[in-house]
Amino acid sequence: MDTMERAIDIQLEDLKKMILLMGGHVEKSLAQVTAALLSRDVDMFSGVHDIEKLINEDHIRVDNACMHVLAKQGPVAKDLRLIISVLKINNDLERMGDQTVNISYSGKDYLGRKPIQQQLSDIQKMSEIAGRMVKGSLDSFVRGDVEQAKKILLMDDEIDALKNKVFQDAMAHMKAHSDDVEAGMDLILIARNLERLGDHATNIAEDVIFAFTGKDVRHGGKFG
Amino acid sequence: MDTMERAIDIQLEDLKKMILLMGGHVEKSLAQVTAALLSRDVDMFSGVHDIEKLINEDHIRVDNACMHVLAKQGPVAKDLRLIISVLKINNDLERMGDQTVNISYSGKDYLGRKPIQQQLSDIQKMSEIAGRMVKGSLDSFVRGDVEQAKKILLMDDEIDALKNKVFQDAMAHMKAHSDDVEAGMDLILIARNLERLGDHATNIAEDVIFAFTGKDVRHGGKFG
Repeated sequence: MDTMERAIDIQLEDLKKMILLMGGHVEKSLAQVTAALLSRDVDMFSGVHDIEKLINEDHIRVDNACMHVLAKQGPVAKDLRLIISVLKINNDLERMGDQTVNISYSGKDYLGRKPIQQQLSDIQKMSEIAGRMVKGSLDSFVRGDVEQAKKILLMDDEIDALKNKVFQDAMAHMKAHSDDVEAGMDLILIARNLERLGDHATNIAEDVIFAFTGKDVRHGGKFG
Repeated sequence: MDTMERAIDIQLEDLKKMILLMGGHVEKSLAQVTAALLSRDVDMFSGVHDIEKLINEDHIRVDNACMHVLAKQGPVAKDLRLIISVLKINNDLERMGDQTVNISYSGKDYLGRKPIQQQLSDIQKMSEIAGRMVKGSLDSFVRGDVEQAKKILLMDDEIDALKNKVFQDAMAHMKAHSDDVEAGMDLILIARNLERLGDHATNIAEDVIFAFTGKDVRHGGKFG
């Protein structure tokens, strides 16, 4: 390690590591609920609650670490932007954890009902894209890779299109099979939560662009 | 004004004023979409987009103001907690603005369909509670009233119960009237967005408790 390294650099690296660890928990939780749903294994959903506890602990830990660095170092400019971004990313990851828990509830309901014809392939695709968005947005954050962050913003359109497809297919099915109204609703709620996961990854990508360029691309970048 | 007042106190007061202004925009947006829905006046929904622009501007302005105070004053302890809370509240209010926009989309869809029997009284109640939660959480923030903030946390149960009722009633209706599947879904999505509005007000109340007591009540207060 360069002996000229500033104390704050070490603390910022620690913050990044905490965010990566937390992001890993979110990815794991998403993978778990998706596997449970696709393999129709209700018992697998319970693992999500153990991961949620870890994510909630991460959430508090990251906030406290940010407060500590802000209070001790009084950072400015790029360092300050990075810490503000960590605070925001922390919030987004925590919400993502909540969304995987929501998926586990809807998924459990869904598996408890009479199986319906509707394919889960779109849900599977949505989960894959959401997973790549989480991983990609955090990679871009840790490496300060603004170009990678911009690619995440485009992936959000894919997941939105799939959500619309799931909504339409499920509603068509519900109209034709009134016994399956609840099951169709479960799929709609799952798709909605996956879409929201993508939205949060998009927020993270926007925060990365802000942290490393100082450019505010939120709300179309009109007010930055 | 007390001449001994610190420069940071003036800046913190300015932050509070910005948050109140932004909260006023969110309240107005919620009132507008609710009135449009209940009076079946589709044209009223368009006003929401003008308010959303204001909320997005507020969002960027508050973030920038917080960054400025953090960089210039290097605040610690209670002052730092207050600014971190403003950053979080800012995020919640912006999401609430998005939720009112979502309600306007679902509301517009709903009014464009054949009217269904389902009462909107529960939606109206949910909107009223959500409005009181927004107002109350921001009041508690500006006045540093932790007791008031705690009351907001309880109101969230009311809004959740109403959401469950709207879900159940709408699904029962959809089962009995397959022509109304889309309309029922619109009501479900509106109820879901109102519930999310309540969740964000709850977040704000939790931030108020943290800012003024240093006590972290998130995630059951287990990790604070």
